Amino acid sequence: MRQIKLFLTDVDGCLTDGGMYYAADGNELKRFCVYDGMGMVMLRKAGIQCGILTSETTDIVLNRARKLKLDHLFMGVGRQFETLPICRFSPATAEPVQLQQLTKKEACEMLCREMNISLEEVCYIGDDINDLDILQAVGLPACPKNAMKEVKAVKNILQLSHSGGEGAVRELCEYILSQTN
Amino acid sequence: MRQIKLFLTDVDGCLTDGGMYYAADGNELKRFCVYDGMGMVMLRKAGIQCGILTSETTDIVLNRARKLKLDHLFMGVGRQFETLPICRFSPATAEPVQLQQLTKKEACEMLCREMNISLEEVCYIGDDINDLDILQAVGLPACPKNAMKEVKAVKNILQLSHSGGEGAVRELCEYILSQTN
Amino acid sequence: MRQIKLFLTDVDGCLTDGGMYYAADGNELKRFCVYDGMGMVMLRKAGIQCGILTSETTDIVLNRARKLKLDHLFMGVGRQFETLPICRFSPATAEPVQLQQLTKKEACEMLCREMNISLEEVCYIGDDINDLDILQAVGLPACPKNAMKEVKAVKNILQLSHSGGEGAVRELCEYILSQTN
Amino acid sequence: MRQIKLFLTDVDGCLTDGGMYYAADGNELKRFCVYDGMGMVMLRKAGIQCGILTSETTDIVLNRARKLKLDHLFMGVGRQFETLPICRFSPATAEPVQLQQLTKKEACEMLCREMNISLEEVCYIGDDINDLDILQAVGLPACPKNAMKEVKAVKNILQLSHSGGEGAVRELCEYILSQTN
Repeated sequence: MRQIKLFLTDVDGCLTDGGMYYAADGNELKRFCVYDGMGMVMLRKAGIQCGILTSETTDIVLNRARKLKLDHLFMGVGRQFETLPICRFSPATAEPVQLQQLTKKEACEMLCREMNISLEEVCYIGDDINDLDILQAVGLPACPKNAMKEVKAVKNILQLSHSGGEGAVRELCEYILSQTN
Repeated sequence: MRQIKLFLTDVDGCLTDGGMYYAADGNELKRFCVYDGMGMVMLRKAGIQCGILTSETTDIVLNRARKLKLDHLFMGVGRQFETLPICRFSPATAEPVQLQQLTKKEACEMLCREMNISLEEVCYIGDDINDLDILQAVGLPACPKNAMKEVKAVKNILQLSHSGGEGAVRELCEYILSQTN
Repeated sequence: MRQIKLFLTDVDGCLTDGGMYYAADGNELKRFCVYDGMGMVMLRKAGIQCGILTSETTDIVLNRARKLKLDHLFMGVGRQFETLPICRFSPATAEPVQLQQLTKKEACEMLCREMNISLEEVCYIGDDINDLDILQAVGLPACPKNAMKEVKAVKNILQLSHSGGEGAVRELCEYILSQTN
Repeated sequence: MRQIKLFLTDVDGCLTDGGMYYAADGNELKRFCVYDGMGMVMLRKAGIQCGILTSETTDIVLNRARKLKLDHLFMGVGRQFETLPICRFSPATAEPVQLQQLTKKEACEMLCREMNISLEEVCYIGDDINDLDILQAVGLPACPKNAMKEVKAVKNILQLSHSGGEGAVRELCEYILSQTN
């Protein structure tokens, strides 16, 4: 395995258990896991950049990304429902940059070009069919225990023993660090 | 099995795990599942219409139905507590149409007439005793793992291996697609 | 067993899984279960009055009691933290009546006097040590699967197979109805 | 074992299941457990002081500490993300005292000096790597079932059978009381 230089994760089902809380007043919530947050803090201390790629566009994810001081955030990538432009945020400043329609794989390739690294040096974790293209492209594809069967069938995918929202990302961060010199 | 042309689902216990979150400030929440949403997106891409029939009347469900761009939404059908008129919403416009009191089965029959299809071409998933009449009428009745025993006893009902809010509806959507030519 | 004429339940750990959600903005939430609500609807249709006895005082419980059209609600009974007066609400009108300090058992006795029934005709479900006095007094004491060991040790207590917030109260309602002529 | 005179607990993963709920409107929530609250009430009735040490700074924890009338609250200790001053609150008055940067162990030592007790008379429960220093220092270190493997490896640590947010702290409180004369 090449040394991982960039860690990217999906949100629903990976950083959460797939639950989407809707309120009568229009508010929405997601449940993240403290262990995953600590895992990404550990990766960043080891010099590995961290980011989120999600098909949704919601301040829930923006707030979580800012709390964890993540390096990258793309919202609206591979979106199912609308054809709005992609938003790329700098989590530190929360400044959005509007992009053309982009798949998750294309967003990942954009980051690789900017960081001057190869797809082999990227780890991505995803759980559903809209993650298949990027999972098939990166050096270290991974999925939580609760992933769909099509995802578990990806060649060489690392199947984690934890579910999304229950420490799957923490388990993966520790695996990456254990492989890092 | 006849080809399914219309997929209808109950909310509490099917699209959710039966949890009803009440807040001190009067707000209410429900927890939906990202996998179920993707399942209904897949059905709609395959030309199968999707809708929700629920005895409650709450903006929680309206918001979820609009997010998923569902084709049909009836709220207040087979209601336990009040005798208010039924609201039928077009999820796209959120325009309500007020109807007379209606059971879930009657709402389903109304949709069949409008779509010019038979009850045999409908799949419905429900989990409690107020779902019995419609479950006994449709071509493909189904229930989540957590359904009440009276529901599991419905003739020819498809008992799913997932619980409500944990992917039962996704499992059912994939089953329908696997039976579709 | 004498015919049950009054069903009373604790809130946290019985109607919920014991979770208490605190928000940064001061709001609080509890997660109730749709099956329990339907269970109490069934009891009330069978002529059995239903009520809640809780040591907390919160609009969360008031709102849930009103939604289910329960017959009785006492908040602040057997309170641990404060010495405020008890509030007794009529759920239908939400009109509070302030009472002197009262244990759960004393509140139950007050209802029995008003209904002209005996403690033998009451079913109460509780899960923690502050429920012991009333559990030892009523005709049908019951507890959810997750009850504390002191509660499970109450003489002749009915231990349910479901946990609080996961259908324990529904299971108990069905048991009561199965024993009713 | 020396008699325990001070009980201290971490928040995320100990008083909660590690879930961090983020809302679209910027609000945040945590899920506490009613049994843990009762456990600390029991400790305080037995004359054992109770407090919380957490690396986060949020009104969620302040509100929970006030509800339970805890004796001590330190927020921002051993913080991962910022270098803000520590806040020490008196939960009763909610008056903050700003302190210099402090680890969890140093906060514990400050309390021991003020109470004129030794570290041997302290019980602390934690679940992640930022709890290691204090767990190695106190007389009764403990961890919930869901603790990280580095925490479970602490010498003489008491591994509880319950998970955080599901009664781990209650189990520990009962253990302490069972050892108290």
